[in-house]
Amino acid sequence: MNFELESYVAQILKDIREKGIEAVKEYSRKFDGYDGEFLVSEEEFEEAERQIPEKDKKIIKRTIERIWEYHEKQLENDKLYIKNASLYGIIYKPVRRIGIYVPGGKPLPSTLMMVGVPAKIAGVKEIAVTTPPKNGKVNPYVLYVAKLLGIKEVYKLGGIQAIGAMAYGIGMKKVDKIFGPGNKFVNEAKRQVFGVVGIDSLAGPSEIAVIADESANKEYVLYDLLSQLEHGKDSKAWLLTTSRELAEYCSRDGIEVVLCKSLEECAEKANEIAPEHLEIITKEPLKLVDLIENAGAIYLGEYTPVPAADYFLGVNHVLPTGGAAKFSGVLTVMDFMKRISLAYVSREEFLAERYLGIRLAEIEGLEMHKKSMEVRR
Amino acid sequence: MNFELESYVAQILKDIREKGIEAVKEYSRKFDGYDGEFLVSEEEFEEAERQIPEKDKKIIKRTIERIWEYHEKQLENDKLYIKNASLYGIIYKPVRRIGIYVPGGKPLPSTLMMVGVPAKIAGVKEIAVTTPPKNGKVNPYVLYVAKLLGIKEVYKLGGIQAIGAMAYGIGMKKVDKIFGPGNKFVNEAKRQVFGVVGIDSLAGPSEIAVIADESANKEYVLYDLLSQLEHGKDSKAWLLTTSRELAEYCSRDGIEVVLCKSLEECAEKANEIAPEHLEIITKEPLKLVDLIENAGAIYLGEYTPVPAADYFLGVNHVLPTGGAAKFSGVLTVMDFMKRISLAYVSREEFLAERYLGIRLAEIEGLEMHKKSMEVRR
Repeated sequence: MNFELESYVAQILKDIREKGIEAVKEYSRKFDGYDGEFLVSEEEFEEAERQIPEKDKKIIKRTIERIWEYHEKQLENDKLYIKNASLYGIIYKPVRRIGIYVPGGKPLPSTLMMVGVPAKIAGVKEIAVTTPPKNGKVNPYVLYVAKLLGIKEVYKLGGIQAIGAMAYGIGMKKVDKIFGPGNKFVNEAKRQVFGVVGIDSLAGPSEIAVIADESANKEYVLYDLLSQLEHGKDSKAWLLTTSRELAEYCSRDGIEVVLCKSLEECAEKANEIAPEHLEIITKEPLKLVDLIENAGAIYLGEYTPVPAADYFLGVNHVLPTGGAAKFSGVLTVMDFMKRISLAYVSREEFLAERYLGIRLAEIEGLEMHKKSMEVRR
Repeated sequence: MNFELESYVAQILKDIREKGIEAVKEYSRKFDGYDGEFLVSEEEFEEAERQIPEKDKKIIKRTIERIWEYHEKQLENDKLYIKNASLYGIIYKPVRRIGIYVPGGKPLPSTLMMVGVPAKIAGVKEIAVTTPPKNGKVNPYVLYVAKLLGIKEVYKLGGIQAIGAMAYGIGMKKVDKIFGPGNKFVNEAKRQVFGVVGIDSLAGPSEIAVIADESANKEYVLYDLLSQLEHGKDSKAWLLTTSRELAEYCSRDGIEVVLCKSLEECAEKANEIAPEHLEIITKEPLKLVDLIENAGAIYLGEYTPVPAADYFLGVNHVLPTGGAAKFSGVLTVMDFMKRISLAYVSREEFLAERYLGIRLAEIEGLEMHKKSMEVRR
């Protein structure tokens, strides 16, 4: 843990909790050089739309369609069943109000598509977007995507102050859960407000591992590795291969090449790394899927490069990083819903089985629990 | 945030990270008064089994059966579909190794049943249990449940040092995700190791809300409210009712009574509270379910008291507290599995649609992403 970062962020969040909107304004001036209204106006939405070429509008609409189509299949029905005249199961309800953080470093309209589409499918009623302004403006593509998704609440707010505003409800209604990637300050702020609100995950630097054999096209593999590194100097790229030729071809700065004796060994290495993205470019890629336990996403064959998945396949690009694939997974529609346990027990079922509960309450020494079961006739 | 608690826990975790097993031993001596082997021996398992009456063994087996039956239905198939000669979807893989914390304050064999059973159903290969020893021993019921579930790795380790040992792999193999409730120190330690490992949730004091009308049996309602308060002085109980008589009958220390004009108003209050448990004891309880958005569990009718659900119904009693039901839900089998995104795209599909990705990469200014899509033929 980085204690300096932690206390720096904690101090700013405390300030925001205590001083409210004045603190948010102060940090906004300081970090974003912004001093105006936070909420994006109707006119700004319209201006943004005018700035985007028709061709790009079509591209964005088509991409949203693809993402929608893919994610729609994730929506789950309530899981109820009847037994002994009793009803048991799980029902799903959408989170009522969410916040989406869209980073400003690079204009990333795709982030808003990837988080906004499954939120809409889940049935989230209220969506607030925060994104740091650049020269007082929000990237027009971000506003256009918001408009297409019916999101009207977009705030020119970045960094720690955006996370604080959403979590504590300052300058806006408090949200129930915060989504979206960010830099280390945003991430740490999300970590610290976890509990006050829900958070999606803590996104770190991007990663790729490629498992490839001698059948793989060397150029494709190399560009896939390089494209991941372009995200920033902390990004990581591994090549796990049985081909010495490919290993040599891809050996360069920033790429960690591991020459393995077998594809099984490559798979085991991949499980140890638990990469955000795993490409499998081998003669029979499906063969390896059973061996993979830890990866955020598995992309198979020569025509499923990570950038395709990032942008247009329709699959989600919000994925666990830094080994988190060992315990968490890709963003889905269900991250915007809550599982609620449900039971409606019949008198017969209850009376026939309560002896179990009564004895267990005795063993655990909970007298009133016992009484609550005994008192029923 | 409680900064004193935070830095106290951070200091102990730091000590454990830096000094390893010696620090774990030191804290174990200090907090649990224990100085022996951490791993429970074969003999201790056998001794525990001898101590449990045959009648209780049957009770525990039957309870596990019920929990198993309920949770088995939660296991999900991979969700794959084929479109344009491409394969898309989500596959599920179990977390490889988990840790379960079983609190020692009260002997809680039911905790281990509630966490262990869905873990086994999910296919988790390795399960490590930590629980603070009392006079050098683990509660025999906990060991018996572990044995029934095929869990051999039980450690006499409690508190912050148990969470540290599991998260950093000290005195045992590192786990991937930590489950189970604990006191405020355990909770804070779980919060701080989140990211290094996964965690299930941050459990706070127990809560119940009861929605009841004039048809409800007053005695049943009162005992349900009281049984929740027996968990500790921080526990909370709300009665939301349209019946003045019931409101008066239940008015006493620790119970917050809200007299409402309609059942709809009761439901809206419940949504604001987002209670861990919500009982609906009205003439037509199913009628209100559609109105409930925020609750960990909904128990309907006169024969579904919380203690029955805690112990023997088979539903899970690990639930969100302190308003966390606004963004999270009940523990299920899927909390022990990871969703992995999968795509295997055909050449035709890729070539036909890549113009979308190429343009989006241009908009976001990622040159190598563009190249990786362009280079494919």
